[in-house]
Amino acid sequence: MTQKTLEWDRGTLRIIDQTLLPSTVQYCTLETPEQVWEAIQKLRVRGAPAIGICAAFGVVVAVQAAAPQSVAEARQVAWDSADYLATSRPTAVNLFWALDRMRQTAARHEDAPSVRALIAALEQEAIAILEEDRALCQSIGGHGAPLVTSGMGVPTHCNAGGLATSGYGTALAVLFRAHEQGKKFRVYADETRPLLQGARLTAWELVQAGIDVTVICDGAAAHLMQSGAVDMVVVGADRIACNGDAANKIGTYGLAVLAAAHGIPFYVAAPYSTFDFDMENGAAIPIEERAAEEVTDIGGQRMVAEGAGVFNPAFDVTPSRLIRGIITEQGILTPPFSRAAHTPYADAVSN
Amino acid sequence: MTQKTLEWDRGTLRIIDQTLLPSTVQYCTLETPEQVWEAIQKLRVRGAPAIGICAAFGVVVAVQAAAPQSVAEARQVAWDSADYLATSRPTAVNLFWALDRMRQTAARHEDAPSVRALIAALEQEAIAILEEDRALCQSIGGHGAPLVTSGMGVPTHCNAGGLATSGYGTALAVLFRAHEQGKKFRVYADETRPLLQGARLTAWELVQAGIDVTVICDGAAAHLMQSGAVDMVVVGADRIACNGDAANKIGTYGLAVLAAAHGIPFYVAAPYSTFDFDMENGAAIPIEERAAEEVTDIGGQRMVAEGAGVFNPAFDVTPSRLIRGIITEQGILTPPFSRAAHTPYADAVSN
Repeated sequence: MTQKTLEWDRGTLRIIDQTLLPSTVQYCTLETPEQVWEAIQKLRVRGAPAIGICAAFGVVVAVQAAAPQSVAEARQVAWDSADYLATSRPTAVNLFWALDRMRQTAARHEDAPSVRALIAALEQEAIAILEEDRALCQSIGGHGAPLVTSGMGVPTHCNAGGLATSGYGTALAVLFRAHEQGKKFRVYADETRPLLQGARLTAWELVQAGIDVTVICDGAAAHLMQSGAVDMVVVGADRIACNGDAANKIGTYGLAVLAAAHGIPFYVAAPYSTFDFDMENGAAIPIEERAAEEVTDIGGQRMVAEGAGVFNPAFDVTPSRLIRGIITEQGILTPPFSRAAHTPYADAVSN
Repeated sequence: MTQKTLEWDRGTLRIIDQTLLPSTVQYCTLETPEQVWEAIQKLRVRGAPAIGICAAFGVVVAVQAAAPQSVAEARQVAWDSADYLATSRPTAVNLFWALDRMRQTAARHEDAPSVRALIAALEQEAIAILEEDRALCQSIGGHGAPLVTSGMGVPTHCNAGGLATSGYGTALAVLFRAHEQGKKFRVYADETRPLLQGARLTAWELVQAGIDVTVICDGAAAHLMQSGAVDMVVVGADRIACNGDAANKIGTYGLAVLAAAHGIPFYVAAPYSTFDFDMENGAAIPIEERAAEEVTDIGGQRMVAEGAGVFNPAFDVTPSRLIRGIITEQGILTPPFSRAAHTPYADAVSN
């Protein structure tokens, strides 16, 4: 990807405003924690890994902007801003995980010799989160690519691409890597109502990469499967419970049911940090409900009669029994996924 | 419904332009067969029964507009215009069925004493089709309403309401009748991308009728079912094969798979004339593919990167094994639906 989802340039946080894509490629600079919060809440930056990274830099931005007079004050600002940024969105666990790392970093450096030294430590940690993400995505792509063979039709839902991460994606990393290996296949991008991340972002990324992509309305996926055009499905995840139940963009669960009904393997691609080992299963994952206007207003015009209700959940939970494998940086986990919690690797990434 | 889908007033055909609803209620007068063809093709008038009725009047309009000099010429215009209007949309069988009735009427009156008499006969037949539809819809409502009980959550897809018929609907007739019986339930209107007939038309009709309606994105239906909010599904149909396989708006098949996976009964409501007894099963039903712009352009803005493909089928086929019952004017048909073809009633309506 030539465009960068997010960039940290000598103390300045810049993001590509994803609400304007693909018609307008515009970067914005986030200079206050409020701006970072707003960017996450309004989905200017989105995707579980990317909002974690953005929030981590948001803590650095907050401490810089507060111009604290003492290390103790700087540490307090870091903690308070982490608490604040955690309220921007409720479902993706990466947000909380990244902010916890920032809190721990602040705690570890409470005896820093200067405010500047504490800020440098926070900055280093945020950069580490970004760089780790980059490496994780590459590994996910490497582990998942062998699943894809030439001639396949592969739907994906929402955007788990470079724009959802520091730059290579999770679900799309699998497809990017397979493409780099010379495989020819067709991706079907569910448009992903209401905010059309599939139509706007996934198709854009895949076109840029030279991958054959066809956009469909979400409701056309079943017909496509029935017609024999689909060989596997791969999506991202915002939070995965111990047993493998996976929260992802609304519509993912339906796609998984359809895949199962058609005997099509359904994969989730996500870094290990997407597991929330505090949750036994998906029932407890909080599902963000977003504004009715995302559904009712299209191109500035209201499409729904006044007086009608609207239900706009942003995520749903796919039960693990519908998931053939979870593609992580450590390899492809297969059922029962509860074993994932008992690997040494899980301890290393667990918060 | 206070608005009339379609009106025949002393030789003038007027329709409500459904592409402008719900924000603008505007009628247009169709004075040539080309205008009727365009109105059907652009979905200004839509819904299987309504396009049949509109096309029938279109034949009258065509003969009137041609000002033929002889009965033979008038009969030829009727036949030619029926052939022409049949090309407006390929999937709904009601269109062909209604046009066949008009052809037969013209043939039956080839010895009419005057052009005016032939036109009067054609007009009478079109009015009969409209009035029969009105009665059929009332009967469908009456047969289906007992399925609905207070407290239920009932999703529907697209618009099989008054706007899809001469005024009372098919799937929505069931809900209108249940509401008239004093039952309290909640309808979930799938917004139905790409043209949003659920959000724009179904919600509008239900709000007008005082029925509790909540609009959801198509992708949210699975989550809704998983949450326990759904008790039955009812949709319309554009063509039903002998074995009960039913073509309806794209997304219907997926909804049926989801209903089956959640143990939720799935009903199709349609007049007997929706059966195409020439088709053994749904595999041969032609599926209309519509313009990519319906998917890519929203509010006048292109949402999909140049270079991406688009697949925009307008319908899909739900296999009969997923259908609990087909609610017709003769009662609720239950599997095996192939028996439907062998009733005396089927002979009466068959073309």
